[in-house]
Amino acid sequence: MAELRALVFDVFGTLVDWRSSLVTSATEAGLRAGVDADWAAVVDDWRRAYPPALERARKEPAWRDLDALQRETLDDVLTRYGIDLPAADREVLVQAWRRLRPWPDTVAGMERLRSGFVTATLSNGHVALLVDLVRFGGWRVDAVLSAELAASYKPDPAVYLRGAQLLGCAPEEVGMVAAHAGDLEAAAAVGLRPLFVRRPDEWGTGVPEDPPDLPGLVVADDLDDLAAQLGC
Amino acid sequence: MAELRALVFDVFGTLVDWRSSLVTSATEAGLRAGVDADWAAVVDDWRRAYPPALERARKEPAWRDLDALQRETLDDVLTRYGIDLPAADREVLVQAWRRLRPWPDTVAGMERLRSGFVTATLSNGHVALLVDLVRFGGWRVDAVLSAELAASYKPDPAVYLRGAQLLGCAPEEVGMVAAHAGDLEAAAAVGLRPLFVRRPDEWGTGVPEDPPDLPGLVVADDLDDLAAQLGC
Repeated sequence: MAELRALVFDVFGTLVDWRSSLVTSATEAGLRAGVDADWAAVVDDWRRAYPPALERARKEPAWRDLDALQRETLDDVLTRYGIDLPAADREVLVQAWRRLRPWPDTVAGMERLRSGFVTATLSNGHVALLVDLVRFGGWRVDAVLSAELAASYKPDPAVYLRGAQLLGCAPEEVGMVAAHAGDLEAAAAVGLRPLFVRRPDEWGTGVPEDPPDLPGLVVADDLDDLAAQLGC
Repeated sequence: MAELRALVFDVFGTLVDWRSSLVTSATEAGLRAGVDADWAAVVDDWRRAYPPALERARKEPAWRDLDALQRETLDDVLTRYGIDLPAADREVLVQAWRRLRPWPDTVAGMERLRSGFVTATLSNGHVALLVDLVRFGGWRVDAVLSAELAASYKPDPAVYLRGAQLLGCAPEEVGMVAAHAGDLEAAAAVGLRPLFVRRPDEWGTGVPEDPPDLPGLVVADDLDDLAAQLGC
């Protein structure tokens, strides 16, 4: 088997806690605007609207970044809830995707994994968003890679292949780290090695997503556990 | 004037000392192969062959990375000197561009500049090469950007514009940091702000390149001086 040389990471849910961060931002925006709502439910629905928005975006002739897509889906969700939030507060929520807290193990875990492998993001967030997010969270990767650099969105195979190519690696030399089965299935389908990290608190339930059924899958409880299993 | 938000950096010569690093590698390769030569002269001529090779590469239909171009120009230079170096040693020299020592002020200077600005490479080296180079030198940037992401080479305006776009910035919000007048002239022509750093030892002469004559040019003696002038 080819030597594992690089790790690429899903970000939202895998390295950062989008839910608690966005619920805080939405609650604050509601207080500012004097709007009461079940902000956790709004945020969860906003997040659920994200994969289908990417699916639609992949079919559009011109690539649009995540800020543009999030603006649209936020408007849809607020309309559905009958919430009238001022434009400035909506934009604060869109920009809140740049200020998502890392999971408690992310900063140290990423450093430990960097000691053994080249590390890079491989997110549907665009480069500018990811740069802000990594700076905000104080964690570190060797490269900020994004679906933007393939002008597409995961799970398009082109995104995974572009990530490996930019790192100068064959697909089988790259591990895809994610808390989401679908991401790993798509990565493995083009030769990357699937590394699953359980994130029980992603949706505030205490229950992680089920790992995919893939040959060679590594399942880890957190980044420290992943590092130990990979010999870092 | 627009606020300066990000700094993009030329790498070879501006952040790392290609010459002394490559002369060391070439001298070692010569000893291994039992080949005597004026390795400093060979390295200088190899480096001089680099801009014209990029110029030719820009006109080719398919983009090729720096490793491919360096292999060709190294073969040319060695032929010209009548040096018969084994293929494995030639490849060691091509790969030596990943192990170039940073200038003495680079590690700390880049950290200081990162405290005030988003920082990124903007080099003709490809992403994979730059990732290795930054890891080798132990310095840090927020993003590894490369001419590769514009499928071209500096001084093509597309490279500078792609860099700004990927950072989510207007060109005038981005400063181009380089020890080379031509790089800054090309960047300034499309709106980036020119920031010149003197590197007197780039060619082992103790004499830096002359700064370009550009409006608003900042001239610094090193990265620490640049950080002070930019208020970091």
